[in-house]
Amino acid sequence: MSARVLLPWTDIELPGGLAAAYYDGVTLPGDDLSGVEFYVLPYDAGTEPPKLIGKLPSLRAVQALSAGVEALVPLVPEGVALANGRGLHDLSVAEHALALIHAAQRDLPRWFAQQATGSWEREHTRSLADSRVLLVGYGSIGHAIERQLLAAEAVVTRVASHAREGVHGIAELPGLLPSADIVVLILPETEATKGLMGARELALLPEGALVVNVGRGSAIDTAALLAETTTGRLRAALDVVDPEPLPADHPLWRVPCVVITPHVAGGSASFYPRAKKLVAEQLRRFVTGEPLLNRVE
Amino acid sequence: MSARVLLPWTDIELPGGLAAAYYDGVTLPGDDLSGVEFYVLPYDAGTEPPKLIGKLPSLRAVQALSAGVEALVPLVPEGVALANGRGLHDLSVAEHALALIHAAQRDLPRWFAQQATGSWEREHTRSLADSRVLLVGYGSIGHAIERQLLAAEAVVTRVASHAREGVHGIAELPGLLPSADIVVLILPETEATKGLMGARELALLPEGALVVNVGRGSAIDTAALLAETTTGRLRAALDVVDPEPLPADHPLWRVPCVVITPHVAGGSASFYPRAKKLVAEQLRRFVTGEPLLNRVE
Repeated sequence: MSARVLLPWTDIELPGGLAAAYYDGVTLPGDDLSGVEFYVLPYDAGTEPPKLIGKLPSLRAVQALSAGVEALVPLVPEGVALANGRGLHDLSVAEHALALIHAAQRDLPRWFAQQATGSWEREHTRSLADSRVLLVGYGSIGHAIERQLLAAEAVVTRVASHAREGVHGIAELPGLLPSADIVVLILPETEATKGLMGARELALLPEGALVVNVGRGSAIDTAALLAETTTGRLRAALDVVDPEPLPADHPLWRVPCVVITPHVAGGSASFYPRAKKLVAEQLRRFVTGEPLLNRVE
Repeated sequence: MSARVLLPWTDIELPGGLAAAYYDGVTLPGDDLSGVEFYVLPYDAGTEPPKLIGKLPSLRAVQALSAGVEALVPLVPEGVALANGRGLHDLSVAEHALALIHAAQRDLPRWFAQQATGSWEREHTRSLADSRVLLVGYGSIGHAIERQLLAAEAVVTRVASHAREGVHGIAELPGLLPSADIVVLILPETEATKGLMGARELALLPEGALVVNVGRGSAIDTAALLAETTTGRLRAALDVVDPEPLPADHPLWRVPCVVITPHVAGGSASFYPRAKKLVAEQLRRFVTGEPLLNRVE
């Protein structure tokens, strides 16, 4: 019997009668793939796995493990279902946002540099507690970040594309920036979010404010941020930048009050159990004929 | 009129009729201090401020801003009240514990090192979410840490000196260590806590476990921790060490999977508003004759 499902991990419990082959994105399995009806794309495994979509004649459903699937849509044949990995990375991204904020507020880069020379110089630092944090983007990641910020006794103000109860609309941003100690950007890349934080918006932030980005790099005008951080007026903690990868000789790397991680917020251990739980549920639905979760239309 | 209170900050609102002098621990004020009845010690200002206690003939009360006042007790004359700063640093210490945990789980030292060379190498990391965290010491700091850990979806087990509802006793520690991904020590220095984590206890932790210390350095046998981290079997994130300061040539500074900050957990911005609020309340009580809070007997 040829495989009916193609999975990236071998430790998924299969509903009865389902034959599986395994592909982690590196080496294609020797199995006969002509019967594969359900394909779970390996996560963050480069450009080869998506190409396979067009080579599976029996395909009925593709499960992606990323939230954004814009690049996959044109590859999925008419009549084949596509489901995304919405939510699987939320906690990982939220956690990394907290790591960046803590690192910046508690001067971790300074202490790590001192560690290299064995220096016990001490100084008081900023704190996250009592800080006024502006969350720009209030979906499930923003919500997870907020929960952790509130537990740390920060004061949170929410901003989303559209105003609603308890959430400011994006048009109100200029009026909110002057009283923010920390701005956290958690925005998808759209025409509306590109360059949202330009020179004018950054100038509205108070001296010493921290700009955090765990959404998409394009939300910030990199040249404007470089200017404001080079003078030391603003600080930044960035997991995403524009362009990506940031060229090795880009001056943003060397600004003392800027912390950069190479787009690693989503890729941590907490992703896997959540992804496997989703895939197990999707396989159950596939077998029983129930509609898949996270369908992309 | 000579000063009746001696304070470290000038921005405290004084109850009616109270004359104050100010001493930040650096330069003694020119004021006549013979009438000082209430002395608020400057925080973390070295050995001079405590010496002043014995030179104030009208003294009736000393307010310390640290939680531990063992060193002050012998300096306070019979009949003079001593109050400590219990709770003022809790949030700051808890926050720093989270900063250390996040840094270790999300590989921040690696990314910061890469930043220095402009390298965009990516890799998946550990996560705090789903991690099994053993909180050893469950007072107010432990409680504040727990709140933040739970918001990050970690799984928390509590240990304190005495077992109580929902909290394991310290005698159960050996049975709990083998299933801990992260151990956080938040213990005062007592005869019972000295060397609590020795070679035998550390050996009970699973491969890759993270040892965090924000209490007192003496709770860990430094040589044993050095041995277990040098092999890479355990990781550590330490704000306190034994001895302190750690000598510049101590090998613990250079272990790749060890992060050290120089006892800075308590000293962050969130301390000041809390300390000022306590002092304002104590001055009110002093003037009205009500008993002081945080009295040390």
